[in-house]
Amino acid sequence: MKIIPIENVKKTDVDMEGASGVTKQLPIGSGDDSPSYSFRVFSVKPGGHTPHHSHPFEHLNYVISGRGAVVDEAGKETPVSTGDFGLVHPGETHQFRNTSDTEDLVFLCAVPKEYE
Amino acid sequence: MKIIPIENVKKTDVDMEGASGVTKQLPIGSGDDSPSYSFRVFSVKPGGHTPHHSHPFEHLNYVISGRGAVVDEAGKETPVSTGDFGLVHPGETHQFRNTSDTEDLVFLCAVPKEYE
Repeated sequence: MKIIPIENVKKTDVDMEGASGVTKQLPIGSGDDSPSYSFRVFSVKPGGHTPHHSHPFEHLNYVISGRGAVVDEAGKETPVSTGDFGLVHPGETHQFRNTSDTEDLVFLCAVPKEYE
Repeated sequence: MKIIPIENVKKTDVDMEGASGVTKQLPIGSGDDSPSYSFRVFSVKPGGHTPHHSHPFEHLNYVISGRGAVVDEAGKETPVSTGDFGLVHPGETHQFRNTSDTEDLVFLCAVPKEYE
């Protein structure tokens, strides 16, 4: 059993094309012998965003805090805020944008551990 | 893509031996064509608890709100509160208890979708 507060998990900058103002934490992953899935936490600064991209694996999401939008393939934005859940299917183009001027958008992003 | 606020997800009572004061929501699951994992949310009333049990699959947890304890096989309690992550490995005996007198303990519990 592992129990860890999010503030004790190392933050790393996301240095990926199309990402801006994003850090990543990995509270649960393959290093913990998780059998199949990993929990990642992304923090997006005001004005920041993740890449607008797709990939062959899914995202299961939970918005921990803040306000933002999920952008789909056509560029349509769906607002999200604290307490919202999201499922991005494999192959669906998506992007998370912070739409607040003041507060980070912090969200959980669960993926198969091969892609953590 | 699916996006849903937690307050729009139906709550059902958990009628399981050893559970007390627990409701369940399923914001993401097999009904959404999630490829392999499901997100469940359990709300435990003050004084309530989940069963003290084990099973052949893992839990990946995030404490959304409240205060509680995770009880291990030996009965040892580890305090948890908002913002804590947990991994319960397959076969590990565990129980979630609400240790607050006033507030629900609300936590995300991710499992392989066969066990949602």
